[in-house]
Amino acid sequence: MNQTLTVDLNCDVGESFGAYRLGQDEALLPLVTSANIACGFHAGDPAVMKKTVRLALEHSVALGAHPGFQDLAGFGRRDLAVSPEEAYDLVVYQIGALWGFIKAEGGVLHHVKPHGALYNMAATNPALAQAIAEAVYNVAPEAVLYGLAGSALVQAGEKLGLKTAHEVFADRTYQQDGTLTSRRLPNALITDQNEAVRQVVRMVKEGVVRSQQGVDVPIKADTVCLHGDGTHAVAFARQIREALTKENISLRAFQG
Amino acid sequence: MNQTLTVDLNCDVGESFGAYRLGQDEALLPLVTSANIACGFHAGDPAVMKKTVRLALEHSVALGAHPGFQDLAGFGRRDLAVSPEEAYDLVVYQIGALWGFIKAEGGVLHHVKPHGALYNMAATNPALAQAIAEAVYNVAPEAVLYGLAGSALVQAGEKLGLKTAHEVFADRTYQQDGTLTSRRLPNALITDQNEAVRQVVRMVKEGVVRSQQGVDVPIKADTVCLHGDGTHAVAFARQIREALTKENISLRAFQG
Amino acid sequence: MNQTLTVDLNCDVGESFGAYRLGQDEALLPLVTSANIACGFHAGDPAVMKKTVRLALEHSVALGAHPGFQDLAGFGRRDLAVSPEEAYDLVVYQIGALWGFIKAEGGVLHHVKPHGALYNMAATNPALAQAIAEAVYNVAPEAVLYGLAGSALVQAGEKLGLKTAHEVFADRTYQQDGTLTSRRLPNALITDQNEAVRQVVRMVKEGVVRSQQGVDVPIKADTVCLHGDGTHAVAFARQIREALTKENISLRAFQG
Amino acid sequence: MNQTLTVDLNCDVGESFGAYRLGQDEALLPLVTSANIACGFHAGDPAVMKKTVRLALEHSVALGAHPGFQDLAGFGRRDLAVSPEEAYDLVVYQIGALWGFIKAEGGVLHHVKPHGALYNMAATNPALAQAIAEAVYNVAPEAVLYGLAGSALVQAGEKLGLKTAHEVFADRTYQQDGTLTSRRLPNALITDQNEAVRQVVRMVKEGVVRSQQGVDVPIKADTVCLHGDGTHAVAFARQIREALTKENISLRAFQG
Repeated sequence: MNQTLTVDLNCDVGESFGAYRLGQDEALLPLVTSANIACGFHAGDPAVMKKTVRLALEHSVALGAHPGFQDLAGFGRRDLAVSPEEAYDLVVYQIGALWGFIKAEGGVLHHVKPHGALYNMAATNPALAQAIAEAVYNVAPEAVLYGLAGSALVQAGEKLGLKTAHEVFADRTYQQDGTLTSRRLPNALITDQNEAVRQVVRMVKEGVVRSQQGVDVPIKADTVCLHGDGTHAVAFARQIREALTKENISLRAFQG
Repeated sequence: MNQTLTVDLNCDVGESFGAYRLGQDEALLPLVTSANIACGFHAGDPAVMKKTVRLALEHSVALGAHPGFQDLAGFGRRDLAVSPEEAYDLVVYQIGALWGFIKAEGGVLHHVKPHGALYNMAATNPALAQAIAEAVYNVAPEAVLYGLAGSALVQAGEKLGLKTAHEVFADRTYQQDGTLTSRRLPNALITDQNEAVRQVVRMVKEGVVRSQQGVDVPIKADTVCLHGDGTHAVAFARQIREALTKENISLRAFQG
Repeated sequence: MNQTLTVDLNCDVGESFGAYRLGQDEALLPLVTSANIACGFHAGDPAVMKKTVRLALEHSVALGAHPGFQDLAGFGRRDLAVSPEEAYDLVVYQIGALWGFIKAEGGVLHHVKPHGALYNMAATNPALAQAIAEAVYNVAPEAVLYGLAGSALVQAGEKLGLKTAHEVFADRTYQQDGTLTSRRLPNALITDQNEAVRQVVRMVKEGVVRSQQGVDVPIKADTVCLHGDGTHAVAFARQIREALTKENISLRAFQG
Repeated sequence: MNQTLTVDLNCDVGESFGAYRLGQDEALLPLVTSANIACGFHAGDPAVMKKTVRLALEHSVALGAHPGFQDLAGFGRRDLAVSPEEAYDLVVYQIGALWGFIKAEGGVLHHVKPHGALYNMAATNPALAQAIAEAVYNVAPEAVLYGLAGSALVQAGEKLGLKTAHEVFADRTYQQDGTLTSRRLPNALITDQNEAVRQVVRMVKEGVVRSQQGVDVPIKADTVCLHGDGTHAVAFARQIREALTKENISLRAFQG
């Protein structure tokens, strides 16, 4: 008897700020199973957070905190030389802030996924990774820590006893060592949507990804990141949902 | 048989930011019974919040959120024309952010006291007061809402079923209608510390305050605000503690 | 022999911030004669300011500073209780910041127009108006001060000897005393574009506007504000240009 | 006939923000010859900038812009991965902002010295250094660019034709290659004030510094940085002034 394969589709949402609109939350939230909600540092503001929590709850999408650097001008995408303790503090703060809205709306905090440069730095910096994992553990021990598949971040979470979700990307290529191809290199991105879908299906069903070096490398695919920007984001989300469903892969928020 | 009189002494703390030091938290926290901790909008930052929560817990001081306007340049003291919904949102956010650190440190959120211009505006604006009370109710229904004695804010809290603490000031004079004398008027401040102490003792023991018009007016004194700035803040805190103790008034965080 | 009638068409631009796009600068700048460029407090950031200055120069549009409150979350639209000195300081700062980019690009600062709540407050508060006028006078004495037609702001500028431009609105209705109908009242906005165009033509050619009370009131129309948001902004800008040209009214930046 | 030796003493000032006080500007400005004034990104605000420009003018101290990263929480001391273009933009903006106050007060912008992490990154990153130098060149071609002696920043300035000042530190030790000993290493700081004074005198008179490796290395000492924080800052400033004067070294702002 086969166990049903499942995978989580996550998406960054709640990235508007004040008078500024960003993203396609209304169109994407019905298509994903978990939502990473910006917490007011790199994007989002209190009004947007409330609205986004409500919208995600309406669509029964699992609620996640998406803490980032306090760099609105850079959208949290620029490396900032924070100490592990500073990273701990900013993650505690932002999880708490989002928790306020989740509590007010009667929801449950499901996961935490660091944003942008914080995510990338935590993937390779064990001290930073540990600090972030401790922040999650101390504020929301039941929450799942989302991190790059195989990264220092998920390792730090596992070590602490947190549930962790290994995240994969549909539209990024991989290297032989299981890391993402740097965006500074050619071929970092998969622009052919069919190829992106096939990569995801393989990662979920076979636990491997074909690397740029031409060999398959093992990869854990608990959750797939869908980008919310770009004109094809919604169409691609629909396509990947259909492809996964056709392959008898159930879509649901990561349970751990 | 007499019931023991009790009163709460509260103080604003955690107002440092980044490289900037403000206040005398280390000296004042041992002298008060409840602490209003800045939440990163008008003052405070994640590192300061963590440190302040820890320090307050060491001294068994009740932990309170002190949300204010997002106006660091003006220290939250400038009126900002927010809608009630905007006030709701910023209070939810800031309570949550502080809750993160309290949860991480194993404490309990005891109360919420709006800061500066938000406090003053909520004292007289019922719609704003109701929005703030709802924020507290939705995020921390067990918490006590601190507001100016007799103000729209405590009334809004009571109406919602929140525990509320009527706050009085040692060093401010009162008008015949029970309101504070405007700071723009002469005689707004009591500069004689002995007189300030006597005013507090009367408010707590007799439930009245001598107004500027020379008549006693009734006032509810659940908690006394001690200012943390100024060179005499610590000395005055000691003096008022001694005076209250001598009058057999117990000092403890407001219980409701 | 008739003197040619001229009028200035101004528009707020450079309101994007970081990853956030706002407005239709590329489409509107070819259609206006002067541009109010956000200076990083209520909107705009250094990268946006540079880009906007360059774009305005390409279209030979007069460059103006558009200082506002440091309230990005509220887009500078919320009243903030600043002192006149605080208003002076923030206007000096923002004029200077924009001047940096204008200097770097070889342009000239043509005017200063306060934004949003600062503009509205300065229209009726003489002390605030004077502080803003002094800031302009001290930093850019050759620049034109744009303010609501007949307001305290243009009066303060005139008193100091600044060139001032009385600003009118195409899509707002006026009261018998020459003030704008409050947005809180019905009929504040003119939604019929033809009517808006006719109002502008009358203001420029006849120096009057038909008030909501049905009588014509005198109004000085040196510059017409075109809103940059909304789906019809560009179409309306084209329409008003055509109408004014047809009436032999020349379009050019206000000369004073 | 001997030419008189001269050196510039510079100090960071204007680092207060809102309700927060930092530094000892009143005591230090009478003792230095040039002042680096924070421009509102890593420290300082419009009110502080105005006050600081006035204070420096009173003491006939040369006015310099001190642009830093927009990281108030980190005081501009944390590396931020900005692109050269982003560095250019933030330097243009901040020079302009300070220029506003200098213009209003009738002064002259004398120099530009990047702050903290921006200073350090520009010392070794030629692309960043060039971007900063271009910003200065485009906004204030007459201004002197201050940078670490021998660094990529002063080289970039010289290449563009800017006047540049090589900056040395009294209380930091140097390596055999002329670079500063990293603060992460022991012996990075000179805590003996007499030794610090002797180091400065040698750098100015002999153009050499004794490195940690025990050999003298050539160094250009156009300007000496005095730190404004610490309890001994003022006393040390006095001591170094006296020592330099005694050695017949004139103190005056760098002329280039």
